[in-house]
Amino acid sequence: MSEHRLIEYIRALASGSAYPWLKVGIGDDAAFLDLPAGGQAVLTTDMTIEGTHFEAGTAAALVGRKAVARAVSDLAAVAARPLCSLAAVDFGSWPDARPCEELVRAIHDAAAELSAPLIGGDVASGTGPLCVTVTAMGTPGPAGFVSRSGARAGDAVCVTGRLGGSGRGRHLTFRPRIEEALALAERFELHAMIDVSDGLSTDALHVAEASGVGISLLEEDVPLAEDAVALGEQTGREPLWHALNDGEDYELLFCLPGDQAGELAREGVQGTPVSIVGRVTAERASFLVNGAGRRRPLKAEGWEHLS
Amino acid sequence: MSEHRLIEYIRALASGSAYPWLKVGIGDDAAFLDLPAGGQAVLTTDMTIEGTHFEAGTAAALVGRKAVARAVSDLAAVAARPLCSLAAVDFGSWPDARPCEELVRAIHDAAAELSAPLIGGDVASGTGPLCVTVTAMGTPGPAGFVSRSGARAGDAVCVTGRLGGSGRGRHLTFRPRIEEALALAERFELHAMIDVSDGLSTDALHVAEASGVGISLLEEDVPLAEDAVALGEQTGREPLWHALNDGEDYELLFCLPGDQAGELAREGVQGTPVSIVGRVTAERASFLVNGAGRRRPLKAEGWEHLS
Repeated sequence: MSEHRLIEYIRALASGSAYPWLKVGIGDDAAFLDLPAGGQAVLTTDMTIEGTHFEAGTAAALVGRKAVARAVSDLAAVAARPLCSLAAVDFGSWPDARPCEELVRAIHDAAAELSAPLIGGDVASGTGPLCVTVTAMGTPGPAGFVSRSGARAGDAVCVTGRLGGSGRGRHLTFRPRIEEALALAERFELHAMIDVSDGLSTDALHVAEASGVGISLLEEDVPLAEDAVALGEQTGREPLWHALNDGEDYELLFCLPGDQAGELAREGVQGTPVSIVGRVTAERASFLVNGAGRRRPLKAEGWEHLS
Repeated sequence: MSEHRLIEYIRALASGSAYPWLKVGIGDDAAFLDLPAGGQAVLTTDMTIEGTHFEAGTAAALVGRKAVARAVSDLAAVAARPLCSLAAVDFGSWPDARPCEELVRAIHDAAAELSAPLIGGDVASGTGPLCVTVTAMGTPGPAGFVSRSGARAGDAVCVTGRLGGSGRGRHLTFRPRIEEALALAERFELHAMIDVSDGLSTDALHVAEASGVGISLLEEDVPLAEDAVALGEQTGREPLWHALNDGEDYELLFCLPGDQAGELAREGVQGTPVSIVGRVTAERASFLVNGAGRRRPLKAEGWEHLS
């Protein structure tokens, strides 16, 4: 059973009940709700598992930072402002006290650095791989909650930064695009946003499906990371393949009116480059378009758990 | 390294920073905070791990329910009202789609039943044991947040229900004492509260330590569950030992002015019996007192991870 199908199963279960206080529930990067006595909250939870999200032997400091940054990136994806976080750490078969302390220190420090200070948690030992679950809470940014489901035909599709080859190290050291997301939300009319965790191809399809539209990506305009080129030399694949499918870039993929995208692509945001990589179409099919204008179906070849 | 020492390590790290919006942080059953634009939230996160919190082969429906109920019990422990929950499920090496679906359905159904409907989550497969992390969010109840740190000399120490032998099955089927906690908070002056997850001995010591007081428990007044007697027949231990140390009762342990406890013990709360099991003392040492008045030090022999 695929992760995607399982999430659809959960969404279908949850869709049976309506809660007036719940603005956005299962199926987006984060949930969005009204609190009974006033105020609004954005919540997301993310696992970081040894052997899946990092190799055994990775320094505790990097593991802790990645665990927090993944959750905070989901707040960026909906243009929320981080407030705090909680961490549940199953140390698995990690035997010694010192790396356990290093790991919790890394989680604590990363949470403070990423503006989501640690306010609670749980610890346990087990028999399997290490698993860190971080729940991050935020509040809506200047444009409120930006879902993945609001893309409109005619929108430009943009990404921050450069994509591909994150497995060479960036997947451990990336900086969640919180400041960029908040600045984008303040200055532009964001119709939809997501963070590129599964891969540009898969995440573009997530936006297209949630929005009931199609997305055509222009191969030549996908910004390739140096890592994508270097990794391609090792794997024999095109750097573009890695940029489309590796995932764990944790860049922002977003849709906004086409006439707002040009200025943004020239100037970038908060010092981070922005590229226009495609176009939203009313036709509910998504494509990769090459320099000669030939198109082929966009496939979800990005990372998927439970596949 | 013990769980207790690791949590102390994290608390010490976190105590270096003060956040004006954070009312209660690491070290209590849940965190308590003000939101920037108004409103307050109570947050807790809890893991439920195969081989640690349930045996391999336990029905998915029971696993899912326990995972949610453990987190909701932490909201009860601070007299908060549940609002919603998120679940991160590492299916580990569970191979088949059907139990995965059953598990997420159980989590969804339990969350709805326990007034903390599921609004988000994460799923992954791995190689180790199944691990479900539930984050529950609530709002302060009628008396605000009831911490574990407010016990005062002279208070009566009370518990709901009966204790011991939960491993015979109650640890999977317990009902978190949310209604009881809210009714207690409304009708009585609760000085401190905790849920009995680690065991009466350990959790009483948690309250004593956090409050800077001592607690003397009266052996003869500890309410023994039938399971404590039945388990004692198997293990050869006194039922009292099981009531003190088994843990996973998920009853409420609370302290209130001595003159309010008599009525409560006679009437119970929301149909659940309440027992006076001890007294809070100014002397910062905790004891078990037998029927003849002889006392011995109260030791934390309850459940502890990472020991």
